Amino acid sequence: MENMKLPAYRAAWTRTQSHAAAARLDLSGIYPPIATPFTAMEDVDYQKLEENLHRYAKIPFKGLVVQGSNGEYPYLTEEERVEVVRTVRRSLPTGKLLMAGSGCESTGATVQLTEKMAAAGADAVLVVTPCFYKGKMDSCAMIHHFSKVADSSPVPVVLYSVPANTGLELPLDAVLQLSQHPNILGIKDSGGDITRIGLIVHKTKTQDFQVLAGSAGFLMAAYCVGAVGGVCALANVLGRELCELERLCVSGRWEEARVLQQRFIEPNAAVTRKLGVPALKQAMEWFGFHGGACRSPLQPLTEAETQQLRQDFSSNGWL
Amino acid sequence: MENMKLPAYRAAWTRTQSHAAAARLDLSGIYPPIATPFTAMEDVDYQKLEENLHRYAKIPFKGLVVQGSNGEYPYLTEEERVEVVRTVRRSLPTGKLLMAGSGCESTGATVQLTEKMAAAGADAVLVVTPCFYKGKMDSCAMIHHFSKVADSSPVPVVLYSVPANTGLELPLDAVLQLSQHPNILGIKDSGGDITRIGLIVHKTKTQDFQVLAGSAGFLMAAYCVGAVGGVCALANVLGRELCELERLCVSGRWEEARVLQQRFIEPNAAVTRKLGVPALKQAMEWFGFHGGACRSPLQPLTEAETQQLRQDFSSNGWL
Amino acid sequence: MENMKLPAYRAAWTRTQSHAAAARLDLSGIYPPIATPFTAMEDVDYQKLEENLHRYAKIPFKGLVVQGSNGEYPYLTEEERVEVVRTVRRSLPTGKLLMAGSGCESTGATVQLTEKMAAAGADAVLVVTPCFYKGKMDSCAMIHHFSKVADSSPVPVVLYSVPANTGLELPLDAVLQLSQHPNILGIKDSGGDITRIGLIVHKTKTQDFQVLAGSAGFLMAAYCVGAVGGVCALANVLGRELCELERLCVSGRWEEARVLQQRFIEPNAAVTRKLGVPALKQAMEWFGFHGGACRSPLQPLTEAETQQLRQDFSSNGWL
Amino acid sequence: MENMKLPAYRAAWTRTQSHAAAARLDLSGIYPPIATPFTAMEDVDYQKLEENLHRYAKIPFKGLVVQGSNGEYPYLTEEERVEVVRTVRRSLPTGKLLMAGSGCESTGATVQLTEKMAAAGADAVLVVTPCFYKGKMDSCAMIHHFSKVADSSPVPVVLYSVPANTGLELPLDAVLQLSQHPNILGIKDSGGDITRIGLIVHKTKTQDFQVLAGSAGFLMAAYCVGAVGGVCALANVLGRELCELERLCVSGRWEEARVLQQRFIEPNAAVTRKLGVPALKQAMEWFGFHGGACRSPLQPLTEAETQQLRQDFSSNGWL
Repeated sequence: MENMKLPAYRAAWTRTQSHAAAARLDLSGIYPPIATPFTAMEDVDYQKLEENLHRYAKIPFKGLVVQGSNGEYPYLTEEERVEVVRTVRRSLPTGKLLMAGSGCESTGATVQLTEKMAAAGADAVLVVTPCFYKGKMDSCAMIHHFSKVADSSPVPVVLYSVPANTGLELPLDAVLQLSQHPNILGIKDSGGDITRIGLIVHKTKTQDFQVLAGSAGFLMAAYCVGAVGGVCALANVLGRELCELERLCVSGRWEEARVLQQRFIEPNAAVTRKLGVPALKQAMEWFGFHGGACRSPLQPLTEAETQQLRQDFSSNGWL
Repeated sequence: MENMKLPAYRAAWTRTQSHAAAARLDLSGIYPPIATPFTAMEDVDYQKLEENLHRYAKIPFKGLVVQGSNGEYPYLTEEERVEVVRTVRRSLPTGKLLMAGSGCESTGATVQLTEKMAAAGADAVLVVTPCFYKGKMDSCAMIHHFSKVADSSPVPVVLYSVPANTGLELPLDAVLQLSQHPNILGIKDSGGDITRIGLIVHKTKTQDFQVLAGSAGFLMAAYCVGAVGGVCALANVLGRELCELERLCVSGRWEEARVLQQRFIEPNAAVTRKLGVPALKQAMEWFGFHGGACRSPLQPLTEAETQQLRQDFSSNGWL
Repeated sequence: MENMKLPAYRAAWTRTQSHAAAARLDLSGIYPPIATPFTAMEDVDYQKLEENLHRYAKIPFKGLVVQGSNGEYPYLTEEERVEVVRTVRRSLPTGKLLMAGSGCESTGATVQLTEKMAAAGADAVLVVTPCFYKGKMDSCAMIHHFSKVADSSPVPVVLYSVPANTGLELPLDAVLQLSQHPNILGIKDSGGDITRIGLIVHKTKTQDFQVLAGSAGFLMAAYCVGAVGGVCALANVLGRELCELERLCVSGRWEEARVLQQRFIEPNAAVTRKLGVPALKQAMEWFGFHGGACRSPLQPLTEAETQQLRQDFSSNGWL
Repeated sequence: MENMKLPAYRAAWTRTQSHAAAARLDLSGIYPPIATPFTAMEDVDYQKLEENLHRYAKIPFKGLVVQGSNGEYPYLTEEERVEVVRTVRRSLPTGKLLMAGSGCESTGATVQLTEKMAAAGADAVLVVTPCFYKGKMDSCAMIHHFSKVADSSPVPVVLYSVPANTGLELPLDAVLQLSQHPNILGIKDSGGDITRIGLIVHKTKTQDFQVLAGSAGFLMAAYCVGAVGGVCALANVLGRELCELERLCVSGRWEEARVLQQRFIEPNAAVTRKLGVPALKQAMEWFGFHGGACRSPLQPLTEAETQQLRQDFSSNGWL
């Protein structure tokens, strides 16, 4: 790991009241990273979105993540991204957190979208690693990027590492450095490397830095090594059941937790790694939510894929 | 390779006059994928851009590529992307081609930006593979995406595969299928797999499909196996010399070509894979162009990197 | 997953007494995959090996793994491989298991070495995936290979997947198919994908198939999702402490387990992924065992690497 | 690249007469890396091997490579490896080179097998990169390994980099350093990165270091950038035709060469990357050679694979 000095502009940081408050925001719990419903014409379907939100309101989620990877945010315009957050804010019951994805490729665009997301009602922002110039996105670039964003953000920042989509992992030394920033609360880690997750918890234990598992496949293991919650695509479909897994983990009922956890692995893989967002949306339909089609170039499932998806749910007793 | 039917909407395709004309557009030659100069405040510096363009006008390029990977297009707003193309159009001497990058993640956004680029004066568009949902970007998705864009584009389309940035390669079977589209002229292949490039040339030889090497490192080898030109970051710096390499290749003077080619490999690697856009812009300064800083999160070169860069040029006799 | 018929020769399988016995062998517990000490002339140093064994005898290990990856088995001749096992057998206290690595690239060689290992006193064999012809080592090839070996092996077989060395992972469908073989007891999984480990446990729960974590970095998480033990390079150094972690996990004292687990992550990474066998052997010296040099081409640690290694132990309170 | 001092034992090197002679051995030309025929019982079939050799004797090869990757050498015992070389030596016409694969995982074993190969009649040895401890096989380890082997080898050494099988590439800086060793003649590079091949030629141009393409897929491009020949699996099948491609390349008839080259790409991919050694052996049968079965765990082709293979030859006019 590189020995890296804090950037100069960090020197000015003081734990002002707002940031101290921010640092205390408790992220623990389960979040669905909600899908974005579209009409047949591929427009955002705000009405169906609201109907989904009314159903989610009855589930003991800690909050909602808007524009995580499976929200198809790279396919939304900036206006749509903000409007979706505004819509969610209106529907969200008091006491639930709204975490909004505000990551863009450039630092400047991320700073601006972060401000708009806060103005639209986000309680925190989830900032994905920039990734196009992979070869240059080293710890130094990452630390600068996230520090700049966190410096100016009106709401606390959660780091977001999702190598399956970005092709890179936020380096551990960058995570550790950034964990010291007063306006950076934690990380959503979707890579699933449980050794790394345990190490992040271990090395940030004096920082009150909160780690969220980025997938239901390793949620119990992540709790086991010290994560405080999960942002799980599968929570769009089996939200109540994932909250039950949370309850078992936090109350130390690991034997029961294991039985439940293992029934999630295959359906979770189906709606993420194996068949992606189109499968998540199809499964949502089966469970009474509005999923619908994806924006192009994402393609609908083939018949064989739909059967595979159904099998992955039914063989685990969910259908 | 999958056996894939043509999408239904392709049935209506007829080689109308405009497309026949399009299909005849000759892409052969060398193109710099131009860098985007910024001011100290990270605004696009249109004046410095124009000064670069005046210098490029004296070099026997076939044309310019605006918003290839090293144009930092992921860091530009849509308005900036279009305005830069408009600026280049105004400066470009008659007879030079303007190929504009119009790729976005969603098909719809790519269709719209393609139209704007054509309206801003692009002679052709270069469309990069969407890449965020890597696991779902299979041949089927790619064929749909590029066909849709090509169907509606007012100007011919060039496919763009750049795995170092996108983390995926446009699959060969998709390239072959798309090569039959009357409004798809060719491909810029930056992956550098010379076996694949030879095979693309071989399997499309009845389609008048034109292959451009996406880097100066394998330009001569690409000519050797049947490519017709190159879009080379290094042409921003050593444009005249790369045009000389082109001349040697097309006139069959391979021995002389080899000597020149080999002197390009290290400086080319330095301004692309090894040190990236910041190095390209630094080298441009040394050779009398305006390079300047990059937008964040791209970081300036360290002192050691700058020395390495200089070494890669000087040890090959360019500095 | 492919739908695969059982090979014809499997039809003859019946659960004979010996195999039923084999299937009942309880693998649960901690194993050091022991290092092979060499003299200054790079000969196997059997005396130092025995001195290590005497010290290991006092630690509550379930047994020893001889010729796991860090035993430098690819650098041993067949004669040395067998002689080392014979030496361990002689020193091993009653009631401890001896698991011997008998994997070779070809099926025939593996069958033969397996027999020799059994004759030399192995209680079970650990069979690594063949890997040279990576592109052809699909589920079908793997199922044939391991079935043939298990069919003829006098002792039970444990599968061994170690992608960091072999460049491939034993495919999940092959694991599930092979879990039904009466002479295949379990798997040592060194990949560290906790989701996969959980799924293997889940899908084999009716087979009495035992999963061993292949590294101390994810040992607790593996226990949490249903593994029964671990084969951990770090147990060569901190064996007693890893047995303590086992005890905490199996008795459900997860909070205490977590504190201990997390102190293992960095030293474990140092002696495996980061600095490899030379680091493991160096650390052994610090903790009173004989480590010594590796066979070439493995190189001794540099001074900087040695300091890094020491730091990874000392910063976690082990030195 | 690391700045690396020559190992101390290199200081003693002097260009003795034998090594000066070695350094002058001309490797230029085409070599089939011959397959190893087996009987139905998976024994080496020396008679069929000899029959193949008699047919190869009529083709204008520069020589034969015995125990390149497709010779199934990882499945042969040491005795078999040496006996196969001895058999080839007896059959080989005067003036043809015999290059024998002598690489093993450990330096010591490689040194010993190299001596045996020389004694069995090898004119040169082809030494593959050790690869099991991938993480530790850095330039330093590689330079030590190959230097030790070359120091003691009675015949000249050719480096061998084949990432598809080993999972690693011999680093460029190691190649450049090793190119200065008086007993290292050149490299067989099977990675296919034409930029790298050109750079190796360029950076070793004062060393009389000879580069051989490791596959027919990029043979012409490799000649174009300065390689002197090829070791091509496909030469087991289309040997005469590959020698014709060589003739066209060295006589500067690039247009004709291109037509021929491109017809090799698909059949070459079929017998290497796509379908492997079983496909090579099947194709050999079609062209009048003895191929036969592979040793397990390599599996026979499925019916669908056989048809695909046939298609890859027939669609290019070879069947």
